Formats: sequence, C-alpha cells, structure tokens
Amino acid sequence: MDKKEIKKQEIIRNSFHLMHLHGYNGTSVKDITDAASIPKGSFYNYFANKEDYAKEAIYYFYHQEDYINIFDDKNLKPLNRIVAFYEKKAIEFETEGFKCGCFVGNLTQEMGDVSELIAKATEDFYLELTKKISSCLEEADQSGDFNPRLDIEVLANFIVNSWQGILVRMKSQKDRKVLDDFIKVLNQILLK
Amino acid sequence: MDKKEIKKQEIIRNSFHLMHLHGYNGTSVKDITDAASIPKGSFYNYFANKEDYAKEAIYYFYHQEDYINIFDDKNLKPLNRIVAFYEKKAIEFETEGFKCGCFVGNLTQEMGDVSELIAKATEDFYLELTKKISSCLEEADQSGDFNPRLDIEVLANFIVNSWQGILVRMKSQKDRKVLDDFIKVLNQILLK
Repeated sequence: MDKKEIKKQEIIRNSFHLMHLHGYNGTSVKDITDAASIPKGSFYNYFANKEDYAKEAIYYFYHQEDYINIFDDKNLKPLNRIVAFYEKKAIEFETEGFKCGCFVGNLTQEMGDVSELIAKATEDFYLELTKKISSCLEEADQSGDFNPRLDIEVLANFIVNSWQGILVRMKSQKDRKVLDDFIKVLNQILLK
Repeated sequence: MDKKEIKKQEIIRNSFHLMHLHGYNGTSVKDITDAASIPKGSFYNYFANKEDYAKEAIYYFYHQEDYINIFDDKNLKPLNRIVAFYEKKAIEFETEGFKCGCFVGNLTQEMGDVSELIAKATEDFYLELTKKISSCLEEADQSGDFNPRLDIEVLANFIVNSWQGILVRMKSQKDRKVLDDFIKVLNQILLK
C-alpha cells in the first residue's frame, strides 16, 4: 500500500463512525475532515467527493471486520462458523446499545436508490459475505453435516439479507430478543 | 371520523409518497404542504410537528394496505395467505422498479435511533403484521396443515423482519431475484 493509500485509510478509520451514526446526508465533508484532523481542502487529494468517500468507507468497513476470519476457522465445524459470526455480531450490537445498525445496510437503505456508486459498493459487500457463507454451507454439505433443502446460494443470500432486516427491527425494538430470535431460526435451519 | 380527522388523512394521502421517496430528513413541512395543496401554516392545525406527521403517516400506511385483507381470506389456506401477501408485495415492488423500499422500514432505519415517537409507531406496525401472520400460523397448526419446528411467534417475527432485509438488499440488487428467493425460502419453511 502506498503512502497516499495509507493516509486515505487513516482518514476513513478516524471518521467513518460519523456516517454510521448520522447517515450519508447527515454527515458533511467538513464533519469528516474535522474528525480526521485534516484541512477541509485536502479531502479532495484523497477522495473525488463525498460519494467516493462513502464507497471507499464501505470497502474499508468490510476489511476491518475481524469477524470475517471466523468463516475460515478450521477449529469450528463449517455450520457453527456461520452461527458464531452472527453471535459475535449480536454481542457487538448489544455493547453498542442496539444503536446504529449495520454501516453498509444503512447506506444501502439511504442511498441505494440514489447513488449507483454506493449501491454497487454495498452490493459487493453482500456478495463477498454471501460467498463466505456459501463456502461454509458447501463444506458442510460435502462432509455430510448438512442436508440443504434449498439451493445453497439462495440460502446464503437469504441469511445475509434477512440479518439486515433484523437490524432494521432492532431499531424499533431495541433489545436482544430480535437478535436472539434470528440466531434461533439460524440454528434451526442449519443445525437441527 | 370527524372532519378534522378526514382532512388529516387527506393531507397524508396526498403527500406521504414524498417521505417514502426522499426520507424523513429529505422532506420538509413545506414539501408536505405543497403536495397537499394547503398553506404551510395550516399544517400545525393537524400535526404538532413533522415527527407527529411521520407517526400519523405510519399508521395511515398500514391501514391503506389492501393486502392486509389477504390474511383474513378464507378462500385461501392460512399458510397460502402468508405467501400470497408477499407475492403481491413483490409484484408491487416490481411495478415500482424496485425503488423506494418499505415506507415503514425506511423510517425505522432512518429515525428509529433518533425519534422515540417514530420508533414506537414503526414497532406498532411490525407487531400488527406479526399478529396477522401468527394467526395464520396458528390456524394452520390447529388444522394439522403445519408442523412448526419453531415457536410460532418467533417464526412470525422472523418472517416480518427478514422481509425488511430483503427490501434493503433490493436497493443494491435492483431485480426480482431477491424477492423471488425470499418467496422460495418462505414456501420451503411453510409449505414443504
């Protein structure tokens, strides 16, 4: 990674929580540069505009997710890796007081109809996550641990998508029940 | 319904598509009164403020949904009513070019963490819909058409919530596949 790329990542790391909390329209370039402690003008050395920043932040968000490694954890059976991923996410949301929701989900909801660039970046995120889950489902299928009654890709997409709906509901329900119930259904679909 | 209430409903009917399209923060009181062809000042004869308007629009949205009647349609078996509801919604979203998403889901996502009033109104919507679906599941269970492997309330909530996630994904995917896949999974869970 070159110096400019490192600085870009640093700006995103120090500021993307703002867009997570206040949304795309609720966050100005000035808010971002203040949070990253850089002059407003220098923003454009790194990003074409706010839309480009949001796109880059989506890719950054995906790669800073430690949990992604769970899907490759050979100490866990493949189906248990999927459940473990969502269990870790549920704990994270509880720690945050069931606020904010998913950075990517929020941006899809707010900007998916408006910005092709952002829609494309969020879609890339869903596809990458779906691929990870599909791989686990296939591994389980091959080892005889899983007898899928549905096409694996359909099921993987359904898991990824339905979780986003759980996080929408979390904002009106504001407790762990909605997250726990998702994990119950997931266990039922995958492990029973 | 008294005259004031009728006028209130008329204002909402003529304007709530704006908030559906542009979101809460993207819609001003002026936008609303222009769409409803009333003077800006008279808005406050009907609503305490924009937040109160959004709350009322959520209740209005639920009750103008013709599809809700499907859950009481005795010509269909109870589990088929649930599938039929989502099939009708899928056709509606296709007609709209997979845009906008769910009026209530969007408001939950945008305002659920910010406005208790709006969070409460959206939660009431989810609870009412969940109750309709639970009733169908119970009816099917009692008539022996359904052998639920999960608590009925958990399952009904899961259906309502996961649909909201499907609509988030629709905004990045922009085709029927995400809706069709949901209906496939629903069929598998309920009817197979």
